Amino acid sequence: MQGEADRVRAINQRFYDAVSHQNMLAMEQVWSHTRYVRCVHPGWNMLEGWDMIRESWREIFTDAICLTVEAEDPDVTVLGPTAIVTCREKITTFTLDGSSTSMAQATNIFEKVDGRWLLIHHHASPLALPEPEGPGESD
Amino acid sequence: MQGEADRVRAINQRFYDAVSHQNMLAMEQVWSHTRYVRCVHPGWNMLEGWDMIRESWREIFTDAICLTVEAEDPDVTVLGPTAIVTCREKITTFTLDGSSTSMAQATNIFEKVDGRWLLIHHHASPLALPEPEGPGESD
Repeated sequence: MQGEADRVRAINQRFYDAVSHQNMLAMEQVWSHTRYVRCVHPGWNMLEGWDMIRESWREIFTDAICLTVEAEDPDVTVLGPTAIVTCREKITTFTLDGSSTSMAQATNIFEKVDGRWLLIHHHASPLALPEPEGPGESD
Repeated sequence: MQGEADRVRAINQRFYDAVSHQNMLAMEQVWSHTRYVRCVHPGWNMLEGWDMIRESWREIFTDAICLTVEAEDPDVTVLGPTAIVTCREKITTFTLDGSSTSMAQATNIFEKVDGRWLLIHHHASPLALPEPEGPGESD
């Protein structure tokens, strides 16, 4: 099962690479296009079905001048043809006004179809930042 | 598969009944006790393993004078021995100062073990309230 977990970890990383490169083609390949795919962006209402989800990523990629999402401590559980990955996301957004960093907790669910792991569920929710940014800042 | 989805929907409801009745025994029965169970309460860091999760429910049940969580629009996807339920949670907390209501988006994952569906993953995250409360509310 270790090999399978490694494969899931790799596809999970590919998802975050697609986000950080604003690569819609890679996003299309990482996600399943079935009707039961679901996506919760931090603070958003849940999106249902691939059409809505694809549109949301298009919007996110259009709005951000630059956006990177790093997956920290990915933890993989493989249950037959389904796999659950949890990780913390370090989200950095660059705009004309500078950069901002936020953290989120993610649950990603993958399904193995014809030997390929595909993302079917992404739920990310805001987390408090571990420590305040900036010099001299206290409480 | 419809019968299986109904069984998952019923166990999902049993989870919310256990919360709303602050029933630790029912909670013990709804959850799997495996090492890979995970729980994200709204705004909390993720908890890993049944011991931490049980302790968190104990705390929540102790802190609340009364707490109800209603699952709205549960949506069930069964993938072999794994099932994913999404729903919105209407959380009402009663304290000495009165009551407050909040909404959350939940992803619940169940695993079928020896013919029984058990909760292995609960991820709930804050949602904006749909409309302000008040006497002038219509429909």
